[in-house]
Amino acid sequence: MPELRQEPVTKKWVIIATERSKRPSDFPVKQEERKEGICPFCKGNENLTPPEIISYREPGTKPNEPGWWIRVVPNKFPALQREGTENPPKEDFYTVLPGTGAHEVIIEASEHDTSLERQSLSQLVEIFRSWRERHNHLMNEDEIKYVQIFKNEGAVAGASLQHPHSQVIAVSLIPDVVAEELDGAQKFYREKKNCIYCEINQIELNRNTRIVEENDGFIAYCPFASRFPFETWIVPKQHQASFSGLDDSLLRHLSSIIKETISKITTSLNHPPYNLILHTAPVGYQDAPYYHWHMEILPRLTIVAGFEWGTGIYINPTPPEAAASYLREIKAIH
Amino acid sequence: MPELRQEPVTKKWVIIATERSKRPSDFPVKQEERKEGICPFCKGNENLTPPEIISYREPGTKPNEPGWWIRVVPNKFPALQREGTENPPKEDFYTVLPGTGAHEVIIEASEHDTSLERQSLSQLVEIFRSWRERHNHLMNEDEIKYVQIFKNEGAVAGASLQHPHSQVIAVSLIPDVVAEELDGAQKFYREKKNCIYCEINQIELNRNTRIVEENDGFIAYCPFASRFPFETWIVPKQHQASFSGLDDSLLRHLSSIIKETISKITTSLNHPPYNLILHTAPVGYQDAPYYHWHMEILPRLTIVAGFEWGTGIYINPTPPEAAASYLREIKAIH
Repeated sequence: MPELRQEPVTKKWVIIATERSKRPSDFPVKQEERKEGICPFCKGNENLTPPEIISYREPGTKPNEPGWWIRVVPNKFPALQREGTENPPKEDFYTVLPGTGAHEVIIEASEHDTSLERQSLSQLVEIFRSWRERHNHLMNEDEIKYVQIFKNEGAVAGASLQHPHSQVIAVSLIPDVVAEELDGAQKFYREKKNCIYCEINQIELNRNTRIVEENDGFIAYCPFASRFPFETWIVPKQHQASFSGLDDSLLRHLSSIIKETISKITTSLNHPPYNLILHTAPVGYQDAPYYHWHMEILPRLTIVAGFEWGTGIYINPTPPEAAASYLREIKAIH
Repeated sequence: MPELRQEPVTKKWVIIATERSKRPSDFPVKQEERKEGICPFCKGNENLTPPEIISYREPGTKPNEPGWWIRVVPNKFPALQREGTENPPKEDFYTVLPGTGAHEVIIEASEHDTSLERQSLSQLVEIFRSWRERHNHLMNEDEIKYVQIFKNEGAVAGASLQHPHSQVIAVSLIPDVVAEELDGAQKFYREKKNCIYCEINQIELNRNTRIVEENDGFIAYCPFASRFPFETWIVPKQHQASFSGLDDSLLRHLSSIIKETISKITTSLNHPPYNLILHTAPVGYQDAPYYHWHMEILPRLTIVAGFEWGTGIYINPTPPEAAASYLREIKAIH
């Protein structure tokens, strides 16, 4: 029978539609064709991007020349802009703000034909080190309230270029999704004197029906109220509100559990498109006892359609217990 | 320069990303191939669906046989179920409810190769009469709190069958999106003693920069904080909280403005996938002085990706003023 399940932090509902119950083989993933043409993110084409903001590169090599293994550049078509933002025309009824912020691209490899899970663990450490560096830098910039880092993998998930990359968008306000998580977590803390994410970690580890992976720093689980088939969250075991608290030991554990979890997802589901999304504390909330940063992996196997837009209720044909069981058992190809 | 715009009812933000400004020709829409095989919604195949709930048909013809022009059937793979719903296993931390509700399909034509905007005005009247009939019927059923009616057009927008159809899902709770609209509208009403949607109608008619169409009953406009390129809302001119208030005269005006607006969108954008979504009052709110039913047309030309999932902020590359201007000027092919 179908169930209505409530996400414990934001109180949003999902439908686990058991009548449509879907196994990995029920989601045929069409592989994208390799796009031809010159890739602006490839080694040797550094002049095709705006000048780099930072890079991790071999000693003695120059900026905007080969020799790098991670390169961060401004987005050529930024959604928000750091400087020279004019005030938009005044409105007497509507509210409008200048689009102040930053929009950067993290190029995750100098070679084109690779992907997050196929790279070495040490390269993943470098990727998430660059996430941390840009996060911490932008959190200290004037007017910035939140730094959203995310990766879109595959055209269906929004990647317009195939070369492995992630994106950073810094915004001048606390986004709605983040505010809802903060509010829900704060309410729980007031009542129970505990971080709700810490409590969920304990519950999931005890029940062991939705856990996908675990190491010394993190657990990966399919959440009780998963919106998407094979949705998987990666959560630090110890309480930590902000991604900026990630030390080098945790960075290694994070890289390891992401490599393992994404490998399992790509192996089970034949390289599906997915989004990998950082959820972390905004400026001013970095030490909140009630919030807990985490990452959400959302495989894009179902289509968000009229019902979801009208209600905010997602229909998920794969119970998270079934998804976690598949992912636990699959032998990932690295 | 990019702008951050706030939706006046729900207070959600969107980015109007002018640096990426997009015209209709910048959105290449790939036409779907016609699927071969037997269509369960076609005339003559009535036995391939569950028995019909209602139909509009020629006098003397029998249920589940040809002779109909509108046919409503239960969804074969329902997301929610009306009867025999068992209680899910009890949870001591999480909240779960039985998936009680209804899930129906409205078959909008007996012929396969047509589409909403290409059908006659009188057929559109019949389609939306069936929307009204199922809405009003389900709103009176036990345990139902909200009736969501929507149409997914094109595979990218979630239509798994090409034969023209819409769907009805009745749910046992007030969905999040609806609750947010009710809350925002109620707050505005308390302060200003006016329905916010009525006020927006006046503002849009006065400014005349975002209006697409207008007739005696309705206006169609691209909202100030459009999340999607060419997003268009169809709103009754007179205050009315519930879709159940639609009388036969308004039904004709609604059918006419939807036919005209969708024709303009399909002509401008080469038959894009879209969702058409009813927003209306839940059970108990049908006479609310602060809420105002409407329909939202969301063309699916952009991809919802990591930034949107992480923040709830949509990036829209086409300002609604530009979209409305294109749609106003285009000569629609009917």
